[in-house]
Amino acid sequence: MIEAGVATAVHASFSGQGAMRALGATMSQLDDGFCELEMPFSAAAAQQHGYFHGGVIGALADSAGGYAANTKLMPARECLTAEYKINMLAPAQGELLVARGRVVRPGRSLVIATVEVYAKKDGVEQHCALVQMTLFAIDRLPIESRPE
Amino acid sequence: MIEAGVATAVHASFSGQGAMRALGATMSQLDDGFCELEMPFSAAAAQQHGYFHGGVIGALADSAGGYAANTKLMPARECLTAEYKINMLAPAQGELLVARGRVVRPGRSLVIATVEVYAKKDGVEQHCALVQMTLFAIDRLPIESRPE
Amino acid sequence: MIEAGVATAVHASFSGQGAMRALGATMSQLDDGFCELEMPFSAAAAQQHGYFHGGVIGALADSAGGYAANTKLMPARECLTAEYKINMLAPAQGELLVARGRVVRPGRSLVIATVEVYAKKDGVEQHCALVQMTLFAIDRLPIESRPE
Amino acid sequence: MIEAGVATAVHASFSGQGAMRALGATMSQLDDGFCELEMPFSAAAAQQHGYFHGGVIGALADSAGGYAANTKLMPARECLTAEYKINMLAPAQGELLVARGRVVRPGRSLVIATVEVYAKKDGVEQHCALVQMTLFAIDRLPIESRPE
Repeated sequence: MIEAGVATAVHASFSGQGAMRALGATMSQLDDGFCELEMPFSAAAAQQHGYFHGGVIGALADSAGGYAANTKLMPARECLTAEYKINMLAPAQGELLVARGRVVRPGRSLVIATVEVYAKKDGVEQHCALVQMTLFAIDRLPIESRPE
Repeated sequence: MIEAGVATAVHASFSGQGAMRALGATMSQLDDGFCELEMPFSAAAAQQHGYFHGGVIGALADSAGGYAANTKLMPARECLTAEYKINMLAPAQGELLVARGRVVRPGRSLVIATVEVYAKKDGVEQHCALVQMTLFAIDRLPIESRPE
Repeated sequence: MIEAGVATAVHASFSGQGAMRALGATMSQLDDGFCELEMPFSAAAAQQHGYFHGGVIGALADSAGGYAANTKLMPARECLTAEYKINMLAPAQGELLVARGRVVRPGRSLVIATVEVYAKKDGVEQHCALVQMTLFAIDRLPIESRPE
Repeated sequence: MIEAGVATAVHASFSGQGAMRALGATMSQLDDGFCELEMPFSAAAAQQHGYFHGGVIGALADSAGGYAANTKLMPARECLTAEYKINMLAPAQGELLVARGRVVRPGRSLVIATVEVYAKKDGVEQHCALVQMTLFAIDRLPIESRPE
């Protein structure tokens, strides 16, 4: 379970990510320390062989891990990605990409998260990437002084 | 300097990356072991505060490092990204993102590359991300058996 | 369960690691795709505040992940570490360091593994580091031509 | 050039690292944002084929990057390793290991550094590893309350 105020802040922030919107990504699950994002296959998500682009996989994972971390921080604080590392496990082929982010350690300044990314083809998930990332917690800017 | 056959193969492969096309990325330089990509700011590249999305920065870097590696492999072979690690150095704000990939070690099976990413604001570049990556070299599929 | 020939080859290789011997590390568990190593605290394992040194934690994790991978490769083949990434989760304080390596994807050329490292203090384990790594599989040299 | 107070604090801290002492590592250069460490080959630094152990290479790099960062922080503050990522470029064979750490971005809370590691054989250096790391800056404990 997650507090309504946290969920509201997370969804509002996610809606503001133009990159996720352009790729058609949606937030399919949110829980305390957990976030699942889904993204349909499209030309905008593809590399040269018709699979999901490795960088797009990283982008979805970055957001999934970041919002998993934000469930521990929002609404008072939020996180910035300090770094992430992604291993490709298999070619990401299919109709849907699913990224599941989990907080491993919710520190005061640094939050560590892992993200598993799956490609769903004909309804069957294949584990295609694994991410380990570090997020840096900061106080949130008051709404009126945030860049829009 | 780079052989014409190599440059042709690299440009053809890059043109086939739907993700790069959707983000408006272009290949601005190509040399032996080096590749520079540029991407204009757009809503499709943004996170919630109006900066370039960390995942999009990773995606541009992934392609820049990959094509730097491909100058050592194409046209007979090509690389797949095995993994990459990205550190964010500063918020990526500005009108243009520039990623410069360089091969550090051109192994037979594994190619190691680094990528520096800069955000250009009012014409001034700021170093905003640093990437270290591992690429895995494979034989290229004959054109007729490649997924389109 | 693991075949006797695999276990013998893994133990023989581990016994040959001078670095692990100098740190007093022992192999406490071995299973298919899994390896657990233990290392007692000592001055040779310490950093300046009396905790386990971050680099020593990485060294133990490197070996644990490597031998987890070797259970999938030995005796005919073996792995080299291509790269690893380690996140420190908490100061590693206590009488014992325990690293548990697990294979995530046993590819033909690249094996991906994760390693969790725990510090045991007064018998209680604390999760202190998380590792994600890539190993490269090669054919083993015949015994007579191996460097000793 | 580096202030005497900084150099004194760095050397004192490095002398306290039992792991570096056990491996015979010495600090061969120190400058603003830069640190070079050297380590002779020994059984305690070896893996099973008689090369430098990948984890030991990581350990030397961790310390080199950490003290490069500390030149920006000490004596008032110091850094902890948040994470590092190391790519092996070539088997590390020779009589000496040399790690050169450089600060890429000296942030207030997070310091980013890279480390190049070379193996010196018959006096010739070969580039054998590349590291990218994140350090977290903290206030130093007063001497009387530090763990010894």
